[in-house]
Amino acid sequence: MIDKNAPIGVFDSGIGGLTVVREIMRQIPNEKIVYFGDTARVPYGSKSRETVTRFCRQIVRFLQAHEVKTIVAACNTASAYALDELEKEIDIPMIGVVKPGAKAAAAATRNGRLGVIATEATIGSRIYNQYIQQLNPGITILGKACPLFVPLVEEGLLQDPVTDEIARRYLAELIDSDIDTLILGCTHYPLIRSTIGRVMGEHVTLVNPAYETAMELKEMLREKEILNTEAPQLGSNQYQFYVSDTTDKFIRFANSIMKYGVLSAKQVNIEEY
Amino acid sequence: MIDKNAPIGVFDSGIGGLTVVREIMRQIPNEKIVYFGDTARVPYGSKSRETVTRFCRQIVRFLQAHEVKTIVAACNTASAYALDELEKEIDIPMIGVVKPGAKAAAAATRNGRLGVIATEATIGSRIYNQYIQQLNPGITILGKACPLFVPLVEEGLLQDPVTDEIARRYLAELIDSDIDTLILGCTHYPLIRSTIGRVMGEHVTLVNPAYETAMELKEMLREKEILNTEAPQLGSNQYQFYVSDTTDKFIRFANSIMKYGVLSAKQVNIEEY
Repeated sequence: MIDKNAPIGVFDSGIGGLTVVREIMRQIPNEKIVYFGDTARVPYGSKSRETVTRFCRQIVRFLQAHEVKTIVAACNTASAYALDELEKEIDIPMIGVVKPGAKAAAAATRNGRLGVIATEATIGSRIYNQYIQQLNPGITILGKACPLFVPLVEEGLLQDPVTDEIARRYLAELIDSDIDTLILGCTHYPLIRSTIGRVMGEHVTLVNPAYETAMELKEMLREKEILNTEAPQLGSNQYQFYVSDTTDKFIRFANSIMKYGVLSAKQVNIEEY
Repeated sequence: MIDKNAPIGVFDSGIGGLTVVREIMRQIPNEKIVYFGDTARVPYGSKSRETVTRFCRQIVRFLQAHEVKTIVAACNTASAYALDELEKEIDIPMIGVVKPGAKAAAAATRNGRLGVIATEATIGSRIYNQYIQQLNPGITILGKACPLFVPLVEEGLLQDPVTDEIARRYLAELIDSDIDTLILGCTHYPLIRSTIGRVMGEHVTLVNPAYETAMELKEMLREKEILNTEAPQLGSNQYQFYVSDTTDKFIRFANSIMKYGVLSAKQVNIEEY
């Protein structure tokens, strides 16, 4: 028996997962959330499957210690590398961002030609290809790693000629390949959605897995009858944020992208989990 | 009594410290080296003093387990944040890259106006300012964090219009300030030395702390009479490389910048130290 009043655990390598949190807040506003961002060891996207899985296992233990009812891996790299292994190890449901993004993209393409942009790890894992070809083996998938997008976003160059130039280089082969749908396969990429959209052209549909994941999470909680149906009480600490590095930078970024004021976060030594 | 035949321990947040290793190999070719690169938790330059110091303390324990005769913090951020604290905790000499760089820059400037480019952490610590003003309080120091330089180097854009454009932006205020000497205060930056030199102009002297650190290390070992005077025996495993993530990517990078072939590296779970 899972307690439907328990919080949802959400984690990411750092701050990108807040784009998923933002969608969960919008779509299922009654839910409590415990967020963990691994800001001491960020990024994951350039690291190995083994290391990322070890880090994620520690985070799952941390979230379980907070008695969450479900865990959302709000990070494409974590979803690509660690989800299959970790969901076997726990007895609460776990979802990632890759499957919902793959499903939405497979439904969106009209010409059967799909692009995925993501970290080196996510592209190297070929996980989007696997999920999409399970859904529809006729779809052609082209993947492209875009390692500079995260640092450019974190440097605040959201609307900038340098970001345009890098986007044109990374996306050139996808444009030449005549795709009609593009998955933004890293949680930072929706923050440069307008640049990516301009470079790709209006005829290309951009799929944001953060949005799709919140939809799928809501559906899953409904099916299992563990949606929290009570509106949260005032002052009830509905959203709790934890990070592995100090909290100041995290709080600044969180407040720059969330409507809800993130007033505080706590630092945790995740290596102890 | 320190064993002069023991190896020198060198560490960095990842791969950048190999530029220091390269200089040590050139300047004191008889020495054995044990290198540790924290590739699972890289980078350090955007993280807090507390977290960086905790990571460095684990690495110092790891190197001490290898019975090194001295430890070189071949990372500006580690030198800025952790060196003062950690050198008090151990009984072998420890040197960083900041003091040697500061000393060389203070000696090089003619107009008393000096620039430092480095990570956010190193610039925020104002450590170069402190050391240089101890040496000569009349020197004016201007610091500038350049967070995109490391990702640009790691993406291989060493000679590229995008790197030129980013360099022009970061360096504009230093050029306007009429500095005549610039410290490359991050171990990755010597790899884009030609771009930085072109943007700054020929009249600006670039100081590479990697080179200065190897010089100072040699001097320190001589003073303490622990220079290794014997040439290493053939097949004696003179250089050992350890990393916290998997080894493949590290070995590729190491071989791209070192003349000596880095044939192997070992993975270590540094969180256990």
